[in-house]
This record gives sequence, C-alpha cells and structure tokens, in this order.
Amino acid sequence: MENQMQEKASKAKAASVLLANVSTDAKDKALEAMAQALEKNKQIIFDANQKDLDAAAAMIEKGDMSAALYDRLKLSDAKFKDMVSGIRDVAKLEDPVGKTLSTLVLDDGLTLYQVSCPIGVIGVIFEARPDVVPQVMSLCLKSGNATIFKGGSEAKNSNRALFDVLTDAMKTIPEIPVGAFQLAESREDVAEMLKLDQYIDLLIPRGSNDFVKYIQDNTRISVLGHTSGICHAYVAESANLDTAYTVCLDSKIQYPAACNAIETLLVDDKIAEKFLPEMCRIYQNNGVELRFDDASYKIAEAAGIPDLKKAADEDWDTEYNDLILSIKIVGNVDEAIEHINKHGSHHTDVILSTDQKEIDKFAGLVDSSSVMINASSRFADGFRYGKGAEVGISTNKIHSRGPVGMEGLMIYKYILSGSGHVVKDYVGDSAKPYKHEKTQEKYCRLQ
Amino acid sequence: MENQMQEKASKAKAASVLLANVSTDAKDKALEAMAQALEKNKQIIFDANQKDLDAAAAMIEKGDMSAALYDRLKLSDAKFKDMVSGIRDVAKLEDPVGKTLSTLVLDDGLTLYQVSCPIGVIGVIFEARPDVVPQVMSLCLKSGNATIFKGGSEAKNSNRALFDVLTDAMKTIPEIPVGAFQLAESREDVAEMLKLDQYIDLLIPRGSNDFVKYIQDNTRISVLGHTSGICHAYVAESANLDTAYTVCLDSKIQYPAACNAIETLLVDDKIAEKFLPEMCRIYQNNGVELRFDDASYKIAEAAGIPDLKKAADEDWDTEYNDLILSIKIVGNVDEAIEHINKHGSHHTDVILSTDQKEIDKFAGLVDSSSVMINASSRFADGFRYGKGAEVGISTNKIHSRGPVGMEGLMIYKYILSGSGHVVKDYVGDSAKPYKHEKTQEKYCRLQ
Repeated sequence: MENQMQEKASKAKAASVLLANVSTDAKDKALEAMAQALEKNKQIIFDANQKDLDAAAAMIEKGDMSAALYDRLKLSDAKFKDMVSGIRDVAKLEDPVGKTLSTLVLDDGLTLYQVSCPIGVIGVIFEARPDVVPQVMSLCLKSGNATIFKGGSEAKNSNRALFDVLTDAMKTIPEIPVGAFQLAESREDVAEMLKLDQYIDLLIPRGSNDFVKYIQDNTRISVLGHTSGICHAYVAESANLDTAYTVCLDSKIQYPAACNAIETLLVDDKIAEKFLPEMCRIYQNNGVELRFDDASYKIAEAAGIPDLKKAADEDWDTEYNDLILSIKIVGNVDEAIEHINKHGSHHTDVILSTDQKEIDKFAGLVDSSSVMINASSRFADGFRYGKGAEVGISTNKIHSRGPVGMEGLMIYKYILSGSGHVVKDYVGDSAKPYKHEKTQEKYCRLQ
Repeated sequence: MENQMQEKASKAKAASVLLANVSTDAKDKALEAMAQALEKNKQIIFDANQKDLDAAAAMIEKGDMSAALYDRLKLSDAKFKDMVSGIRDVAKLEDPVGKTLSTLVLDDGLTLYQVSCPIGVIGVIFEARPDVVPQVMSLCLKSGNATIFKGGSEAKNSNRALFDVLTDAMKTIPEIPVGAFQLAESREDVAEMLKLDQYIDLLIPRGSNDFVKYIQDNTRISVLGHTSGICHAYVAESANLDTAYTVCLDSKIQYPAACNAIETLLVDDKIAEKFLPEMCRIYQNNGVELRFDDASYKIAEAAGIPDLKKAADEDWDTEYNDLILSIKIVGNVDEAIEHINKHGSHHTDVILSTDQKEIDKFAGLVDSSSVMINASSRFADGFRYGKGAEVGISTNKIHSRGPVGMEGLMIYKYILSGSGHVVKDYVGDSAKPYKHEKTQEKYCRLQ
C-alpha cells in the first residue's frame, strides 16, 4: 500500500511543476472538455452512484449509516447540473497564476519580481460527497495545483467514475501533464497520505469536526480547515432592536447545521429586559430550544416565557449544529469579547450595535476570521464573499483565514533579473547603495 | 515547568488581542523608548554579556563550545550600535496593521472589508545570538504580535538583561499591554513550547539545520524557516561567459557559510569545454575545493586543472557551508531543472543565460523560492529584497516563501458591515442577487 500511495504522490509531485506552467487557454479548454465529458457520460456516473447507494441502503438497514450521509452520497439531476455548471464557472474565473504581485528595482538593471504560483500538490480527503471531485479538480486545475483525492469508501464507485471521466477528458488537451491528478482508494491510503510531507504541500480535509481534528493531529503537512464553528451574536445596549431580532434569528435558523450558525446569544444587561422576552418568543415560534444562564433565566421567567431550561457549563463550548441556542447576559462589550475569545472557535461572530466606538472595539478585539456588524453570521461563506468557489473555511492564523477561495491555493516565488550583478559590489566600505524603488512593471514571460 | 511555561504563553495570548489594536503612535513611541533604554543601560548589558562570555570561555577550554559560537555570543560596540539603530529602523517602517486589503460591496449597505491584522502569538527559539531579542521584539511590537522568546542557555544572562531593559522601557507607554512579551529560560521550556498550539500561532526557529528540523518534527504549530540551503547555478550554452564567471564566483565565495551560497555548479555540455577550465582556475585561485562528476572531471583533466577530485553521490545532496563546490555537466536546461528540483532545497537557484525562452523555462519550472537570472544567489536576503528587516528565509510552500519581512507576521480578518442584512433574503426562488462590486473604500475605525 505504502509504495502505491507513494508512487501516486511522487507522480503528482513530478507533474505539479509542469502543471504550474500550463497556459490559461489550455486549462480553460480542459475545463470545458471536462464539463462536456460529464454531460456525455452522465449515465455511467449515475450507474456507479447507484452501486454506492445500493451498498449504502444495506448499511442503513444494519444501522451502519445515517440517512443524512445517504443524502449527501446520492447524486440528483440538480446536483449533477450544478457539478457541470460549477466546472464552467471555474473556467470563467481569472487565472491566478503568474500575476506580478510586486516589483522592486534593487539597482539599475537588477529587478525583483514577486510572481504568484501554485502551492504544488494538494491532498484532499473527504467523506461521502462525490460532488467534491469535479469541484476541487476544476479549482486545482485552474490554479495549477496537482491533487491527490481520497474519498470515503461509501462513495467509491461514484468517485472512481467521476475521476476517470474527468481525467480522460483532460487527456484530450496535450498541455495538461498526465499524472497531475491522482485518486487514492483504500482505507490505508489516508494514513499513508498523512506521512507524505515530502510530496504533499497542503491538506484539505472535508468532513466532520472529529475527522478534521484527526487529520490535524496526525500529520506534519499544513492543514487548511476548521474543526468547529462556535459562533456568537452580541446584542449591545445601543442595538436597533428590530435589526437585532432579524439578524439573531437568521444567524441561528437559516441553516442551523452550518458551521457559521450561532450557538450562543450574548445580551447586554442594560437592554436585556427590553430585548430578550420578544427574542425568546421569536426563537420559540421557530422551533429553537433555549438554554439560559441564571440572569437571562430570571428575565425570561418574569416575562412568562415557557419551557425554560438552564444552560450547563459545557453549553458555552458546544457546537449544537441544531435548533438549540444558549443565552447569556454580559455587563458590556468587553465581557462579550472576553467570552467570545475564550469560548468561541475564532470563526464568525456578530455584533448588534449602533455605537461606532463599541463596534470598532468589537471588530478589533474579537479574534475571529469574520466579524459581522449588524449582519447575519450566515454570510461567512466563499460564494457570498464573492470568491466564485470555496476551497474551505479556515480558522488557521497563517496563510488563509475565513472563507477561502482559489487564492488559498496560491503562493509566490521571487524572480530576480540582473545582468551579472554580484553581492560583493554592495557590501564593505565602497558598497553601492540599493535603490529599492517600487515600480508597476510586470514580469513577462514568452509564451 | 509546564505550568510556568503555560502561564507565560497564556499571558502572551491574552495580551496579544490588545497589542493587535495599539495605535501606530504608541508603538513607535515604545520603540524609541526601547532604543533609548538600550543606550542608557549599555553597561548593564555588557556586564551580563561578560558573564556569558566567561562561562563560554570555560566551555571552550573543555571543548564543549566552538569559537564560532563564542563570536556570535559576544556583543561588540558595533553590534550594540546596530541593535539600537535596528530598533529605530523598525519604527520607521510602515505600520502593517489595519490595512484594508480588499473591499467588496455584497449588496447595498452590505460591505465586506478584508483587513490586515497580526497573527497573534509568535514563538521565537534561537541559539547563541543575543541580538535576536531586540531585533525580533521590535518587529513583533510594530506588527502587533505578542512573542515568547526562548534563547540558548549560553546567552542566558545577555538575553535576560536585554529582555528586562526592553520590556521595562515598553512599560513607560501605557497603551502597550503588559505581558505581551515573555522570556522562557529553562531547557525544558523548548519542549513545553512545542506543545502549546492552543496559545502559539507560529514558531520561528533560528539556528542550525538540525535545530530547525528538530523543531519541525516535534510540534503541530506552524514553523517558519528552512532546514537547508542547497542552491545551484546553471550555466547555459547561451550564457555570457564573463557574467557567468562573476556571478558563479560571487554565489560561492561572497559568504560561503550562508544558506544562499551555491553548493553545485551545473554546466551545459555544449559550453563546458569553453567555460569550465577558466571557471575552475578562478575558483581555485579563491581557495574553493572542486568536486567533479565524470564528464566535468575529464574536461578539467584535459585542461590541466590540478587537484582533481571526484564527487560522490552524496555530494549532490550536501550543503557544504564552506569553500567546496560540486560540478556536474548536464545536457540542457531540462536536465538542469530536473537535477535542481530533485537535489535542491527549494531555496535559491541561478541561471546564466541570454536565451529568454530558456530563462522563462528555468524561472517557471524551478520550484524554488528565489530564482536568479544572471545575478548572484547571495541577493536572496530580506534586507537586499528591500524588506527593511528579515524575519527569516522560508522554504515553506504556504503563507510566506523566500526572504520574509514583517509581512510574514501578518494575517487578515474579514469585517462585514450591514444594517440588518440576513441570508434568507438571498436564497430560494425570490433570492436577491449579490452585487459583488469591488471598491477602493477603506475600513475606518474611530481612534
């Protein structure tokens, strides 16, 4: 197994250098060929998916698979249409490779260009969703990154069919190097992939919190992702109450299973009696179970809110992923910030306020990848952030943070162009000075 | 020990949120206070350094320390002056915090700002050089990053004296949060630091290759650095020979112990007989030991070059850090690229050529952080690249690559400003469309 996985990774690495230099035109042609191949081979893909579904149905009967997983596994006509249009959307995105990010004249005839380039080899490890294959493959192709896919065994046939159709289509464009995309299929492959830091430059795990955490804990390779989304909304004294009702409701119920839904509502004690009873009624009318701290419990009780439940200590650190919300009273914005930085997951947090000074403090001191001012936490998403396509949401503090688009798959190299310039002329007593003049000149390569 | 280290890290983490929001003015005042405090307390610092030097002298006598390490440890008047002016140089650098990196109007009144912010807590682990303390502390302060220093025990007294003088000076500026900078002193602290991924966001090790490799292998925290510098120069058939002689010499001998000095010279076989004999003479006149592959050996032998030595297989993977160079003949630029990507350390590689097509191929396909075109490898350096100060040289493929300045200590957060905007209005059959219009508007906070 190790040798097989290593061989795949080594092939991807070798192809990655070539893929990094393929022209935009060839990449876009390959993407169109991929979209057409999917359309042409729809039946093959659905047949393969049916095999996976049959096996999954047997597992559900034995209690070994959830209905939710079955839904994610199942290809529909709508999902298939989205797959195809998703590939064409990526073809429309600007090519991120070879952009001159900065240019600095060090001295006459000695110019330093910082030029964007792909990271190299991306490892994508994902669970049931077969739609990950076309989505990630198109993003990685356009950004010039070789990719190793490892899908869940429950989607084995679907993944293989999609992978074969897509890579066969790519082969019709001779500029695309063979071997840039690899599919790993055995269960042991995951453990092997995690060891291959000499070949794989970045891992993108997609799946449950536990799954991502397992990956993070067992590899030296950089991981782009997030393990949990414990998001908050804080309602300040100065909040516009109608805005607060609307935003706090949407942040919880618009899609409660998403990582960017809120789990805890923090309310300033000076507004709590005015705001909280109506907010509780709105939540309860929308089927949200509420868990109160002592202070908010009293307010809710006095207002005659039914079905009161106290929050336990662990509630403040829990991602419900469900129609459940914990509620806590805080003394001011500082207490809210402290609670969020301590209990949150540095993902997305919301302030409802009309006081600019307070808003600035919250936006500055809350250490999260997205801070929402009078807007729903649910906006924290690659598509909504205008990225065209989302690679993932990162709670890392380096490289990429928050919703990550194709830019998260890019790095840069420095190209210094001279005509015999040597360092010895720039050191010592008669050292020439550096000019260090920024210019707008672009690095141009012949093509 | 664990509790003490954890406590320091926890204090730094708590202070980091505040430090991220300190005004430019307060940070620059603190830097000036630090520079003045160094000048005022020069004697205290030299006395502490003398203690370390006395202990080091005893170790040298016992053969437990090298003379080179002693030199790095020793503060001189010149080094001290550089320390002080280095702090004032950082004060002059533009504040990298709070820059609006991009602005996107998602819809009327709903604007997404991407704003630069510090990474958080940096862990700096370094060997003998006490001058690391003021240099890194000033960079981290200006960039708003809390920092934990762990220096080598051989510089214990110097580090403590510098750390105390500098942090005392900072305390005169009330806006700087206490506890943002921490000094760890015991040997066990390194192992503890490596475990503290809940507090430390980035590690910057400075020291030998083995030291950096040890850090990389024993932590989940992201590491900025490089373990080795196996750099190459490739002389193409089209090379201007005078340029090639000059650049290849400087790349080797200008400072052979540096990571950006070349270790291997690759020569196109079509130019080798013309180029190599004179190049060998130049190298030998400058004290460089040469190790030849079979083909270059024959050419050198035929030209009557003395002291011929064959390169062994391991030479191609060796960083000599010394006046030694291995030489190999290659058939064309493709073979050169293949050799470099296989044996190099993705650090810095040079092409000598006048053929633009060949240069483009080399610059595109060599997978290194710096590619030099007709210029010395020794230019790959933060100061020479105009960064004002160098945090390190990175061979990572994510976040920062090549010589890294203060920008390597930065990340960003997204701030979405709305007025009650909710996601439910943008989904479903009657979904409002997103505008996704880029603007030049900056995120402004009151101050």
